Amino acid sequence: MSIKSAPISIATNLRSRRQRLAEIIDFPAILWSGTASSRNFPANLYSFRSSSHFLYFAGLPLENAAIRLEDGKLQLFMDDAVPGSALWHGEMPTREDFAQLIGADAAFPLAELRSHSTEAATIAVQNPTTYQEQAEVLNRPIAPANAPHSIDLELARAIITLRLTHDATALAELRQAATCTVQAHKAGMQATPNAKLEAEVRAAMEGVIIAHNMTFAYSSIVTVHGEVLHNNQYHHALLADALLLADVGAETENGWASDVTRTWPVSGKFSPTQRDLYDVVLAAHDACIEKVRPGVEYQDVHFLAASVIAQGLADLGILRGKVADLVEMDAHALFFPHGVGHLLGLDVHDMEDLGDLAGYEAGKTRSDRFGLGFLRLNRPLKAGMLVTIEPGFYQVPAILNDPALRSKYQDVVDWERLAQFSDVRGIRIEDDVLVTESGSEVLTADLPTKAEEIEQLVQS
Amino acid sequence: MSIKSAPISIATNLRSRRQRLAEIIDFPAILWSGTASSRNFPANLYSFRSSSHFLYFAGLPLENAAIRLEDGKLQLFMDDAVPGSALWHGEMPTREDFAQLIGADAAFPLAELRSHSTEAATIAVQNPTTYQEQAEVLNRPIAPANAPHSIDLELARAIITLRLTHDATALAELRQAATCTVQAHKAGMQATPNAKLEAEVRAAMEGVIIAHNMTFAYSSIVTVHGEVLHNNQYHHALLADALLLADVGAETENGWASDVTRTWPVSGKFSPTQRDLYDVVLAAHDACIEKVRPGVEYQDVHFLAASVIAQGLADLGILRGKVADLVEMDAHALFFPHGVGHLLGLDVHDMEDLGDLAGYEAGKTRSDRFGLGFLRLNRPLKAGMLVTIEPGFYQVPAILNDPALRSKYQDVVDWERLAQFSDVRGIRIEDDVLVTESGSEVLTADLPTKAEEIEQLVQS
Repeated sequence: MSIKSAPISIATNLRSRRQRLAEIIDFPAILWSGTASSRNFPANLYSFRSSSHFLYFAGLPLENAAIRLEDGKLQLFMDDAVPGSALWHGEMPTREDFAQLIGADAAFPLAELRSHSTEAATIAVQNPTTYQEQAEVLNRPIAPANAPHSIDLELARAIITLRLTHDATALAELRQAATCTVQAHKAGMQATPNAKLEAEVRAAMEGVIIAHNMTFAYSSIVTVHGEVLHNNQYHHALLADALLLADVGAETENGWASDVTRTWPVSGKFSPTQRDLYDVVLAAHDACIEKVRPGVEYQDVHFLAASVIAQGLADLGILRGKVADLVEMDAHALFFPHGVGHLLGLDVHDMEDLGDLAGYEAGKTRSDRFGLGFLRLNRPLKAGMLVTIEPGFYQVPAILNDPALRSKYQDVVDWERLAQFSDVRGIRIEDDVLVTESGSEVLTADLPTKAEEIEQLVQS
Repeated sequence: MSIKSAPISIATNLRSRRQRLAEIIDFPAILWSGTASSRNFPANLYSFRSSSHFLYFAGLPLENAAIRLEDGKLQLFMDDAVPGSALWHGEMPTREDFAQLIGADAAFPLAELRSHSTEAATIAVQNPTTYQEQAEVLNRPIAPANAPHSIDLELARAIITLRLTHDATALAELRQAATCTVQAHKAGMQATPNAKLEAEVRAAMEGVIIAHNMTFAYSSIVTVHGEVLHNNQYHHALLADALLLADVGAETENGWASDVTRTWPVSGKFSPTQRDLYDVVLAAHDACIEKVRPGVEYQDVHFLAASVIAQGLADLGILRGKVADLVEMDAHALFFPHGVGHLLGLDVHDMEDLGDLAGYEAGKTRSDRFGLGFLRLNRPLKAGMLVTIEPGFYQVPAILNDPALRSKYQDVVDWERLAQFSDVRGIRIEDDVLVTESGSEVLTADLPTKAEEIEQLVQS
C-alpha cells in the first residue's frame, strides 16, 4: 500500500463517515482488513485486497489491521513491521504514522484487540484466515457464508445506509476509476486492428490500468464469445466478422471501482445485422439512463430495458407479439437473461458480500421469473447512488437450445429470422451512472456508445 | 482453464511421471488442485492458481479437483459443472472429457473421494478452504504450516526427486515462459524513455505477458528503489539519473515459471559510477553461469558470486582487504545480502511450499551467517535442474546504517569512497539457467546483459 496516495483530507472525511455511523448504531464495531492469500507458496502472495468495509472507514488498504469504531471514535490495531523486513519490503510507516494519517483516536498492537472486543459487532471478511481470526477474537461463529444476525445485522444495515450513497471523497475516487477505464476501452478499440488474439486486446486495455497504478475491479472479459456472460478465456482468434465484447474496469489504489462494457466489430465496421442489434441494445441503454433519477424504482429501469429490447426485436422480426405481452412472459429474457445493472462503489457489485441486504430493499426478495432472478438491485434510486446500466443481447446456446424454453416461446420467436443474425453472439453496453438530485450523470460519458463513433475509434 | 492449451502428448507424459512416482512410493497419494479465493465478495475471485504438485501430475489447472495416484494409475475426482453455469461460464468439458485428456484410469465425482482416501498421503495446498477439506477427507491435521511427516514426508521427498529435474514437456513450457519474459523485458526497456512512472514501464512489460495469454509467476518488481528487494510499489517518478530494476517473469497457462531481472538506466546511459557497479554484478553473473554444471555445489556458485563482487568492490576502492578474507567475514553481504538464486519450475521458488525440503539437500540446513541465511538452494547441481543466477549490488539503508554492522565492517569499507556511488540504489542481473549434461544453457540468453546492449535497447 502506498501512503502517498492518501488524499490530504482523508482524516476529516473518515471522521465524518464514522460520526454518521455513530448516529445509527450505539454499540462498538470492529472491522478487519484481511491478509494477503498465498498463491503457490507462502512467500508468493496474491495482491492484497482489503475488505471494503474496512476501506470505507480506514481509507487505506492496511494489511492485517483492524479498526474499532465506537461513538465516532476510531482505534487502530496493527503491528509495526518486524525487524529485518526493511530489506525485503522497505521502510514502512509505523502504526503511529498510519494512525495519524487516518485520524485515529488511539492505536494499539494487534494483540490488544481481544481485550477491546467485548460486545462488538463485525462483518465477515472473505479470507478464511481472517474470518477464523474474527471468530476467535469475538468468540462466536463468523463466516461469509453465514447471514449476519443480531448486532452484526444491525451493523451491516447501518453500513449499507452509509455506503448506498457516495460522499465527495468517494466520488472523486470513483471518477478517477471511471476516467482510467474510459482510456482503457479506447486503447482496446485502437489495438484491435493489429491484434490476432483476444489476449492482445486485453493486454492493451489492462496496460492502461496498470500504467495508472490501478488494478482491476474484477476479472476482465475480452471475448468474441460475448454470449458467455463471465467469460475469462482470452485465447480465441479475432476473426474479421466477429464482435468483440470487453467488460473491463479499473479500481483505484484505495479500492474504488468502475465497470464498463463496450462491444465493437473486429473489422472496424458492424455488419448490417450486427448494427441492427447493436442499435437495439443502445436504445435500451439510452432509455434506461434517461430514466435514472431519484425516486425511480431500479426494477422499473430493468423492465424499461426489457421493453425497449422486446420492441427492437419485434421491429426486427425476431419476436412476434405486443411488447407488453412479450415482457410479461419474459420473452426478452431469451436474449437478455441478466439484470440491467447493480450498485457500484468499493465493490464492483457493491456490498454483494452481504448477499442481497444492500441490493434489495427490506421486504423485497429475488424473483424466480426467468431473467429477473439475476437482477442484483431492487431499490428506489436516491441521489448519490452509483449504478451500472448494462443491457445486452446474447445468443446463448444453453438458453436457445433448451427444449423447454424453445417450446414455451415457440410462437413468439421467429427462429428463421433469428438465424439471419448468427454473426451476433453477444452485445452489451455498460456505463456507470450517478444518481443526482436532478436526474443522473454518466461518469463514463467520455467513452462513445454510438455505433459510428465506436467504428471510428477501432479504425483510428 | 483452457482445454485448448493442452499439448497433444499430455497423457503420455503424465503417465510417465506417475510411473516414476510409483517406482519410489508404494502407498497411494491424493493431490488437490485447490479452489479460487474470493477477493471482496463471493462472485469476485482471484484468478485461480492450481497447486503445483497437482499440476505436475494432472497437467491442467482444473479447479476444485483431486487426483489419486497409486501404482502408476490416476483417478480423477471432480464434479461436472452445475446446470445453469453455462450461461455465466460457457459450456465446460465434462469430468470424462478431462479424464480422457489427461489419461486418467478412472473418474469419479468429488463426493467419492473420501471412500478412496484410506492410507493416502498428501501435500497441503496453500488455500485454507482446501487444506481444511484435505484434513477432513483424510481425517488428520493438514496445513501448509505443519512440516510433513510419515507418509506425507515420504511423498514430498518422492515428488521432489521427480520435480528437481525437468522432463521434455516441462522444459518446453519453461522455454515458452522464458521467451515471453525476454520479450517483456525488451518492451520495458523500450518503453522507458516515454514513461514518467514506474507503473508505465510495468504496464509495458506485463502487457507483453498478458498478450501471450500468460500470467505473472510472481508480483512484478519494477522500481527505481532496487534496494528494496521485494518492492511492489510502482508510483515513483522515473528521474533521469536513476537506475530502473525490473524483476518480472511470465508463467504459462499450465503453470510453468520464468524469473528474470535486468537493471537499466532511465536515461539510456549508465553514469560512470553506475557502469562500474553494473560491471561488477555482471562479472559475478557471468562467472556463476560459467561455473554451473552437474556435480557443482550450488552454494559454491553463491560463494563465487560473493568473491567476484568482493573483488570488484575492492578494485573500485569500496572494500579494503583480501577477497578471501572479505568473503570469509561476509563483507560482500553488506551489498549482496541475498542468495545467488533458487530452483525454478512450476513455482518461481520451486517447491518452496515444502520449506527447505527441496532447496536443501538432506543433512544441510540454513546458515546463520549474514547473507548466507537467505540462500534458497544448497544442493549439488544435476543435469535437468533449472536454477536462477541473480547476483546483485544494493545500498540498503537498513544494512548500511545499522550501527552494529557499521562497527563490525568499519575498517573494510571505505565509506567516503562508497558515498561517490550514491546514484546506485540497487542492481540485479538474473537469468534462468538449465543444468545440462555438459554444463549449462541459459534459457533467457536472448535478453542482453552487457551494459552497451542494454543502453541500446533503452534508446531504441
